[in-house]
Amino acid sequence: MIVETQSARFDSISLDCGAVLAPVEVAYETYGELNSARTNAILIEHAFSGDAHAAGISHDGGKPGWWDNMIGPGKAFDTNKYFVICANVLGGCKGTTGPQSINPATGAPYAMQFPVITMSDVVRLQKMLVEHLGITRLLSVAGGSMGGMQALEWAVAFPDAIASAIPIATTARHSAQQIAFNEVGRQAIMADLDWNQGNYYGTKPPARGLAVARMVGHITYMSDDSMREKFGRRFQDKDEALPDFSKVFEVESYLRYRGSQFVDRFDANSYLYITKAMDFFDIANGHGSLAAALERATARFLVLSFTSDWLYPTYQSLEIVSALRGRNRDVAFCELPSNYGHDAFLVDVGEQTELVRGFLASTLRSKP
Amino acid sequence: MIVETQSARFDSISLDCGAVLAPVEVAYETYGELNSARTNAILIEHAFSGDAHAAGISHDGGKPGWWDNMIGPGKAFDTNKYFVICANVLGGCKGTTGPQSINPATGAPYAMQFPVITMSDVVRLQKMLVEHLGITRLLSVAGGSMGGMQALEWAVAFPDAIASAIPIATTARHSAQQIAFNEVGRQAIMADLDWNQGNYYGTKPPARGLAVARMVGHITYMSDDSMREKFGRRFQDKDEALPDFSKVFEVESYLRYRGSQFVDRFDANSYLYITKAMDFFDIANGHGSLAAALERATARFLVLSFTSDWLYPTYQSLEIVSALRGRNRDVAFCELPSNYGHDAFLVDVGEQTELVRGFLASTLRSKP
Repeated sequence: MIVETQSARFDSISLDCGAVLAPVEVAYETYGELNSARTNAILIEHAFSGDAHAAGISHDGGKPGWWDNMIGPGKAFDTNKYFVICANVLGGCKGTTGPQSINPATGAPYAMQFPVITMSDVVRLQKMLVEHLGITRLLSVAGGSMGGMQALEWAVAFPDAIASAIPIATTARHSAQQIAFNEVGRQAIMADLDWNQGNYYGTKPPARGLAVARMVGHITYMSDDSMREKFGRRFQDKDEALPDFSKVFEVESYLRYRGSQFVDRFDANSYLYITKAMDFFDIANGHGSLAAALERATARFLVLSFTSDWLYPTYQSLEIVSALRGRNRDVAFCELPSNYGHDAFLVDVGEQTELVRGFLASTLRSKP
Repeated sequence: MIVETQSARFDSISLDCGAVLAPVEVAYETYGELNSARTNAILIEHAFSGDAHAAGISHDGGKPGWWDNMIGPGKAFDTNKYFVICANVLGGCKGTTGPQSINPATGAPYAMQFPVITMSDVVRLQKMLVEHLGITRLLSVAGGSMGGMQALEWAVAFPDAIASAIPIATTARHSAQQIAFNEVGRQAIMADLDWNQGNYYGTKPPARGLAVARMVGHITYMSDDSMREKFGRRFQDKDEALPDFSKVFEVESYLRYRGSQFVDRFDANSYLYITKAMDFFDIANGHGSLAAALERATARFLVLSFTSDWLYPTYQSLEIVSALRGRNRDVAFCELPSNYGHDAFLVDVGEQTELVRGFLASTLRSKP
């Protein structure tokens, strides 16, 4: 399945911060065919560092999509049955308007002049894209981590526009610990002199700071167990030399590699804007409480968490489930066993596939 | 109790890496009186960023010691009964020889020419200090976190020189996750251009990198729960303004403050050397296995962990306990309930006090 990222352009979007972004572009991909009744569309929401390339093999570069194990013919999001859409988020750096986009007012990249964005802005832009594609009502909105936040936001902001939501390994709002980890990443970037208050486009990006930020992220995405299984206390070089700074543990080498690799594919200012949007996100914002917010949602819900995910622990999913049940909403919940930590929703997809497949089929039957 | 840090100087010490450090100084404090039989001495081991000032009020500055709630008249380490010693570790920056000390060969600070050190080196220097103070056998060696590693090292390296050991919230070896967190700190420091390959003495230290490293540390020292209780999602400013980068969560403000504060009291190169020594530490080193290493230990053990400590989780204490029990050693273990995470051994000392007090008293009775 060779896929190509497409782009839609809109005149403007009004943001929660009061600013208007004009014009605004959205990068997206689609897989499968929209049926004639336009009732089989599913919106996939990517996590923090994801992009529109969720499935298939990219036209340029040949890279598989980030959820290719979940989306495709016969897979959980079965493209023989469903029309699947994935868009890069607002503020991102993979084709959708973000800090590195040209500010028409200046002819230069926005950098830190880019307006502050929220998950609500992100989802509002997606709504414009979905309408642009001729779809009034989505069969489902699904995503893990930050993708799950967007699924929740859809359910509350546009209850009539979705039949179901699948928030995975996510939360209704970041805890102090989650904000703290994001803040460390931001401070690492801003501590890098090459960041230069965000004005590094065309010169050297803050590669060292961004790499450190990514290293912290990777630790939180894995579990203590999965790191033990993958690296243990093995050294990169096998020699039993005396203690020395050049003796590097495999886990150190892995993190350094992943950190430096990230610099080639992600924009540091997008890191700042998107993590801030995650931290600001609280589904209760503007509604008074979690329960009052979720009362607005009429979609069916499938909420999933993973046993070893300590970044988005199960108790956060249960808060969502409990609030939905308290308002008599249709919600199924499973905590799936996995050693992979937060990464489980990306890599340990066996049971997740079965649950999503069944949930989508029953949604299609019950809400035609 | 006004206390003053003292200093002992030795001609040289041979290190595990093959280097000889000459001369070598140790900063230390003592509290209470050594009895005439010299049987009431207890060595307190500090954690990563600690120093010799464990108790009392410092002569210069008036600061209380880092374990002042545990050491003093009538406290867990009762200075009416015991003679308590605490020394800054080798490689440190609080009076003991470390990277910022003058290298006699060059007349300039060692910086990264300082030899790589191990926990075994750290403890060997402490042994020299203890002998210098005229003590052949310690009643106990006690410490939390990295302090617990030193207590274990004492028990294995100098079994005849200690009657008991109290390793708290610690491990026999760092897991991949613990190494990973330390590596993030190191990379943050080395990413700061002011680090300058370690040659920043007399100029600007790598303050931004060191602050980021410390922020990561602070997250790991607290628990999800304690951060929620302390900060929640409260903003630093109370106004309900629109989303903006200047809207800062209390937890962000706290971490920034603690990070910047750390720069004034800690040396970045010491950060590199000491964290590396922690990562290299494995009590099994040179003995083949954990059990074989701990078989050498003849001391009585009190091993403590805390329920919410996710940096040094209880399973790591249980590995130690299990290995000791397997060799029929005298070991008591308690997992103490606390929400304070790894910080619990420093701040939540109620039950810890009772357990340590009883253990020391029975050690004194059973091993005079």
